Amino acid sequence: MESTHQRILGRGLEIVSERGLAGVSLGGLAERAELSKSGLFAHFRSKEELQIELLRAAEEALRREVVSPAMEAPKGLPRLRALVGRWLGWASRSGLPGGCPLYGAAFELDDAEGPVRDYLAESQEEWSGMLRGLVGDAVALGHLREDLDAAQFVWQLNGIYLSHHLSQRLMRDPEADTRARAAFEALIASSLPSRPEIGKE
Amino acid sequence: MESTHQRILGRGLEIVSERGLAGVSLGGLAERAELSKSGLFAHFRSKEELQIELLRAAEEALRREVVSPAMEAPKGLPRLRALVGRWLGWASRSGLPGGCPLYGAAFELDDAEGPVRDYLAESQEEWSGMLRGLVGDAVALGHLREDLDAAQFVWQLNGIYLSHHLSQRLMRDPEADTRARAAFEALIASSLPSRPEIGKE
Repeated sequence: MESTHQRILGRGLEIVSERGLAGVSLGGLAERAELSKSGLFAHFRSKEELQIELLRAAEEALRREVVSPAMEAPKGLPRLRALVGRWLGWASRSGLPGGCPLYGAAFELDDAEGPVRDYLAESQEEWSGMLRGLVGDAVALGHLREDLDAAQFVWQLNGIYLSHHLSQRLMRDPEADTRARAAFEALIASSLPSRPEIGKE
Repeated sequence: MESTHQRILGRGLEIVSERGLAGVSLGGLAERAELSKSGLFAHFRSKEELQIELLRAAEEALRREVVSPAMEAPKGLPRLRALVGRWLGWASRSGLPGGCPLYGAAFELDDAEGPVRDYLAESQEEWSGMLRGLVGDAVALGHLREDLDAAQFVWQLNGIYLSHHLSQRLMRDPEADTRARAAFEALIASSLPSRPEIGKE
């Protein structure tokens, strides 16, 4: 059974997904989690602590929905493809009513100061590091070219994810998935090892 | 001299740039614009009207800082390059204290309902349409290949802009500009007309 703590984080994550961290008021969340305001305060010492716990819960959902299943694909390019395939649009598939809470919050707090922003920046750095690791594995296995700039690849991949977020959420574009897949395939195609030319011995 | 109306919008845009539309409270904005709350209400009938006027003011700044100067470059690829060069990081250069208010608000309201969200989606569609027009000119002039999918090109360009926003603002990455330029040049390189092979008559 869901603990009260989990229930608060679950309801809170729904709000963050739709309206960002700014949408989470203590009163509104207490009501949604069927608690008194003081009952809510018993679980979190401050609004910042609550916000960081909400981001942690989002990371946990991302690991469960995206990373863990992708790790079952063979190492290298297949695993990278599996991860990107699950990453795009993962928030809806995990049952959240809006978009990815982590990238939503990243745009929300990018010019803020303080522990929540710092947490987000670390989380983003960790995520990019994980992606660079997958790209590095694909290079080491000869699936992608040896001189590939993994950091640049991941930088562009982040752009594909963000453009997908924007076109799927704000624009409600039915082609969002197709566009993202085409962009990712173009990025892969430009990163493959060069093949021996046909006719050359 | 700056009118009161312009002063309100100018101060408001600074807040949106740093903290998003959610950061604009009527009380806070009145204080920052050195007005009473009722003085502020004399200029805007509702918070939604104020928010839409703030987005219009952001578009006006974008036209002034980015679009108009870029239009002086020769039509085709030079104009597209000039526009993208000015677009990346335009908010800081225009004197705003944070990031692009339009894309910030787009991520903030992407799952909302109502006139402000609708305005943002239309604004985004108009902007993408303008970019598609520039790409189309470059195709018509033979600078980019004839079979280029201009919509896909612009979709990916939006991704480069968003990844630049994230790496410049949240990550404070000193390489943000270099990464964005490399990504844009790779997009251009994959969109050039095929050249006659060397040695082929």
